Amino acid sequence: MVGVLIVVLCGLLSVLYGVWAIRSVMSANAGSERMQEIAGAIQEGAQAYLSRQYTTIAIVGVVIFIIVALLLGIAVAIGFAIGAILSAAAGFIGMLVSVRANVRVAQASSQSLAAGLDIAFKSGAVTGMLVAGLALMGVAVYYLILTSFLGYAPGDRLVVDALVALGFGASLISIFARLGGGIFTKGADVGGDLVGKVEAGIPEDDPRNPATIADNVGDNVGDCAGMAADLFETYAVTVVATMVLAAIFFAGTDLLTAALLYPLAIGGSCVVTSIIGTFFVRLGANQSIMGALYKGFIATAVLSLIVLLPVTAIVFGGLTGTVDLSDGTTISPLALYFCGVTGLAVTGLIVWITEYYTGTGFRPVRSIADASQTGHGTNVIQGLAISLEATALPAIVIIAGIIVTYSLAGLFGIAIAVTTMLALAGMVVALDAFGPVTDNAGGIAEMADLPSEVRNTTDALDAVGNTTKAVTKGYAIGSAGLGALVLFAAYNQDLRYFIANSEEYPYFADIGAGALDFSLANPYVVVGLFFGGLLPYLFGGIAMTAVGRAASAVVQEVRRQFKEKPGIMEGKERPDYGRAVDMLTKAAIKEMIVPSLLPVLSPIFVYFVVYAIAGKADAFAAVGAMLLGVIVTGLFVAISMTAGGGAWDNAKKYIEDGHYGGKGSEAHKAAVTGDTVGDPYKDTAGPAVNPMIKITNIVALLLLAVLAH
Amino acid sequence: MVGVLIVVLCGLLSVLYGVWAIRSVMSANAGSERMQEIAGAIQEGAQAYLSRQYTTIAIVGVVIFIIVALLLGIAVAIGFAIGAILSAAAGFIGMLVSVRANVRVAQASSQSLAAGLDIAFKSGAVTGMLVAGLALMGVAVYYLILTSFLGYAPGDRLVVDALVALGFGASLISIFARLGGGIFTKGADVGGDLVGKVEAGIPEDDPRNPATIADNVGDNVGDCAGMAADLFETYAVTVVATMVLAAIFFAGTDLLTAALLYPLAIGGSCVVTSIIGTFFVRLGANQSIMGALYKGFIATAVLSLIVLLPVTAIVFGGLTGTVDLSDGTTISPLALYFCGVTGLAVTGLIVWITEYYTGTGFRPVRSIADASQTGHGTNVIQGLAISLEATALPAIVIIAGIIVTYSLAGLFGIAIAVTTMLALAGMVVALDAFGPVTDNAGGIAEMADLPSEVRNTTDALDAVGNTTKAVTKGYAIGSAGLGALVLFAAYNQDLRYFIANSEEYPYFADIGAGALDFSLANPYVVVGLFFGGLLPYLFGGIAMTAVGRAASAVVQEVRRQFKEKPGIMEGKERPDYGRAVDMLTKAAIKEMIVPSLLPVLSPIFVYFVVYAIAGKADAFAAVGAMLLGVIVTGLFVAISMTAGGGAWDNAKKYIEDGHYGGKGSEAHKAAVTGDTVGDPYKDTAGPAVNPMIKITNIVALLLLAVLAH
Repeated sequence: MVGVLIVVLCGLLSVLYGVWAIRSVMSANAGSERMQEIAGAIQEGAQAYLSRQYTTIAIVGVVIFIIVALLLGIAVAIGFAIGAILSAAAGFIGMLVSVRANVRVAQASSQSLAAGLDIAFKSGAVTGMLVAGLALMGVAVYYLILTSFLGYAPGDRLVVDALVALGFGASLISIFARLGGGIFTKGADVGGDLVGKVEAGIPEDDPRNPATIADNVGDNVGDCAGMAADLFETYAVTVVATMVLAAIFFAGTDLLTAALLYPLAIGGSCVVTSIIGTFFVRLGANQSIMGALYKGFIATAVLSLIVLLPVTAIVFGGLTGTVDLSDGTTISPLALYFCGVTGLAVTGLIVWITEYYTGTGFRPVRSIADASQTGHGTNVIQGLAISLEATALPAIVIIAGIIVTYSLAGLFGIAIAVTTMLALAGMVVALDAFGPVTDNAGGIAEMADLPSEVRNTTDALDAVGNTTKAVTKGYAIGSAGLGALVLFAAYNQDLRYFIANSEEYPYFADIGAGALDFSLANPYVVVGLFFGGLLPYLFGGIAMTAVGRAASAVVQEVRRQFKEKPGIMEGKERPDYGRAVDMLTKAAIKEMIVPSLLPVLSPIFVYFVVYAIAGKADAFAAVGAMLLGVIVTGLFVAISMTAGGGAWDNAKKYIEDGHYGGKGSEAHKAAVTGDTVGDPYKDTAGPAVNPMIKITNIVALLLLAVLAH
Repeated sequence: MVGVLIVVLCGLLSVLYGVWAIRSVMSANAGSERMQEIAGAIQEGAQAYLSRQYTTIAIVGVVIFIIVALLLGIAVAIGFAIGAILSAAAGFIGMLVSVRANVRVAQASSQSLAAGLDIAFKSGAVTGMLVAGLALMGVAVYYLILTSFLGYAPGDRLVVDALVALGFGASLISIFARLGGGIFTKGADVGGDLVGKVEAGIPEDDPRNPATIADNVGDNVGDCAGMAADLFETYAVTVVATMVLAAIFFAGTDLLTAALLYPLAIGGSCVVTSIIGTFFVRLGANQSIMGALYKGFIATAVLSLIVLLPVTAIVFGGLTGTVDLSDGTTISPLALYFCGVTGLAVTGLIVWITEYYTGTGFRPVRSIADASQTGHGTNVIQGLAISLEATALPAIVIIAGIIVTYSLAGLFGIAIAVTTMLALAGMVVALDAFGPVTDNAGGIAEMADLPSEVRNTTDALDAVGNTTKAVTKGYAIGSAGLGALVLFAAYNQDLRYFIANSEEYPYFADIGAGALDFSLANPYVVVGLFFGGLLPYLFGGIAMTAVGRAASAVVQEVRRQFKEKPGIMEGKERPDYGRAVDMLTKAAIKEMIVPSLLPVLSPIFVYFVVYAIAGKADAFAAVGAMLLGVIVTGLFVAISMTAGGGAWDNAKKYIEDGHYGGKGSEAHKAAVTGDTVGDPYKDTAGPAVNPMIKITNIVALLLLAVLAH
């Protein structure tokens, strides 16, 4: 109990850091009246959108809360509510800060790059630390209440179910937020660019473009709030799945409590190292922004590497003793520590590969820029080629991670590696959330007619933001890939537990222990793999269509305003920004519902269809295989989309830097098309695949719990 | 033996049909001197390309022949040579006919649509019947020689290995031909369109475009010869895999010889029904080309449905008796017949779904056309959305096919369904191969300045060709999906056979019968799934890059010619067509090597790497899982690419038909970009995934045979 309390304190520390950072951001100069007016419009739009989004989600959430309460009891339903509320809170608070930081970054950038970076990063760090801290606290506090105050045994079914429900709550918010925010932001971005940059020939963020405020609102609700909810759920689900595995594998050993504490302890330690890491983010003499961010990241990683060794020793009461787990593996705390190290190495490699594929300094982005010279078509072809190719190295890193950690400490070793990977979420989210703030700052600078040096400074910050955004997405989906076996194992082990204890869970009584066949030779396993495999594709297709539709609506609205108010283009008339925001809000909320329910309903659908045809054992096998199928194609779909989109975006920036004719050249026009295509790829469909995978898995676990009741 | 001889006769019949059809095509009027001159240039280019391509493949082939002969003996190596030579022959002869039919179709189209359709379809039917007939004969004759003349038992390892090697020979030719041809044709098409249509504003196939002959050459070497090789190998590999399964499952039963004959008998019957079906292709009063083709297809399918019932009864000596197979299932000939019916149903559904996604009469294509109004970016976004979405229904059809046929007759039932599906290859290839001929005819009509009515007629034929081309690709990859379990089962059963008989095959002696674990809970299975999953992505990325590179080179070459010879654009100077053909020949041959070797080397790589880390049992598990992994992602990658590409192409045609502003409008320009992007998607990367899957599977089987020696 003392251990868990210390973890809770670490979580609290991150909240305190958040409070301090918010104060620090808010004390900065908020710029001129014109700047504040623009920022006010963005704030208003973002708040209005998020309020409506969360109201809609709340309706779905209340319905599910009642269903969960009826099926699994109130304690489990409360877990669901905690996950949902904290996930929403992390996103909402992060957004509130970033819509206030944007104008301050614009103002600070007029002084120096270092000043702009400082505020932008601090604002991102608020979101980062809240994501990690709230997720950790949510799991730890509820676990503490259930085990210490309500007296349930740490491995009790109710505790497991309640934690799984907590993950489900977080995931549900996350998929809605990712998708809704993604549709909003990319509908605005794509629509605004097409009609503004391409048709009317005015620069991005030009105040004459009626979609420009909506575009800036989108950065906050999609890239900031949506991303925060996504990482919150990834963090929570991973910790929960690891605890579920600990409860199963360590059942009956002396180390059960220690093993349950270990993932929380890793999270607690890394929250502290992440906070320390933020103070290392400082512009060096070479003025390299990426270098400044890397300093923070490397400091966090190295400190974690050092701290986790004693933490492991303390939690397990030593490093070298061995323990035999219920799945037959023998592990030592030291081996678990090395699994954590592998998790950190996987994170580092994914960061490095992502930078290679999305940075302007390397072959992939340059090849797209080069292909832009021969037109729109070759730009898109090369971008697609890079997006396909970009999946190979991350997949190999994940494969290597699985092999190494499994060799070290079996399935639980893989789980610890993923937990450690995600324990850095505070720092990784901080790097990411800084992006939309600088993007907004650039917009405000443009709209408020600040001197072009300011815009140059914010542009430099923004370009780095493109890479860090791609990194976060690769990191989130990479953790899903590495965690594939963990999520499957949680399902498999849960299922075997119910079958073994079928006198207590009569639903499972007629499945013989040997009947459950997850072998690839079982046709229902192949059926499950295919069905799971189609989900990311169908989901991606729907999401892309939604963005296209929203963007077309924006284009038509902007064209209408330009036509009806000719004064807009001459700068004499003010466009009606609110219309675009309103339109997108409605579109995003409407379009997010169906695809979000796809992963929720699919496991239930597959189970009952296969059950009707082939019986329970094959139905469970098909659902299990589906969980892997959705990860196998989801991993590739998500990485190809996020890396490809980032590469397209930076190929455009590379041309804008003066290559192949620079801004306004034919190559630039082609690159703008590629960027437009990449937008929904990297910011809507691609990142939403990660929560989709998690939901499918979590719903399968809940399905087992419901059937057991 | 009598049965096999009858099958050989059916194969011969298809060759006779081919001879008759060739004579019939060649007797048609070959048009004016100018037309023959153009056609001559296309012939010359196509022949030069294919000769070089096959010379290069021959070098690789000879090396592999020697390796196979050394490792597995001369009889197996001869199997390899038969597969390779016949596959190449089918493609080469088909190409020779189509480069002579094109000009005759152009000439006939100046009389009537019916006359043009007649010659075009007959020329396609030559390729179709040769593909089906030669594949069937190759397998049947070599099987007859091995079993009846050389006296090997039907289920002997040598017979199995020799047939597998025959499949490997066919696959190897196929991947080279698909990729090389695909890079050539799309390099020419994309490059020519970009610089001609988009930049210079001249129509497609305008004789002033120096890339126009290369574009027409590409239709023949890619869409005709490459496609023929692809379907040849799909046919051969499927029949072989089904025979391998028959040898295993029926071992020790009275029906072994009958079961081995059955797939051949299905093939023989359907060759005959396909030939009869070709005579049903006739333009009705409504002048619907698709209707005329459907008549032929439906006639073939219905006749097959009728004929297969008595054929099944004759082969098995009755319909209702049951037999217990070695895998524990009990099947009846009637159940196998119904599996065949299911295979036909799957084919019909895939045709129907493909038409929905790629036809101009339905939502998907129209939504892309609609999105073109708001620019290049939204066109591409909507096209990608449709390409992702288009995978869902085919996957569900395949899933249903697996469930139905497995319920009817176990794994062997699935194999029979796939065999029956592919038995229609003669007719399906005929529908497809007619496309490039009409495409060429249109080109010749344009270049020879024939009246615009002729071009309208060939355009109408060509539009239908876009859909039939997409159908064939969906059909080929769908068979791979449905056959996934068959290919995996062949591997799994082979492996278990070697392990069970390890006194004869000492390499397998140290693997316990229970050690082989294909369960999803085995990390090496997940590793295999991921590794297999990355292959279609990496392969697709390389192929797309190759096309982009080839197209860029064409663009630069054409720009150079336009600049250096200003007379070209005025029609006073003749462009140097040969340069573009030469350049593309070199590029295609060079670029096809590396990606083609990827699936050949991957199973060997995975086996030895995992073997070094985790031992034989897990290495075999990883390779087995890899076979499914490559199908799970490959199915989605291939369908999304081929359906998406077809939809983009027809969205452009829909706009050209006068919607959204018609030709020359901004929407049309955006649609041309989408079409360009779709080109390498649907004609290079997408279709090559099918042979890639097959090669990976076949190499895994050969690896087992080699390790056993």
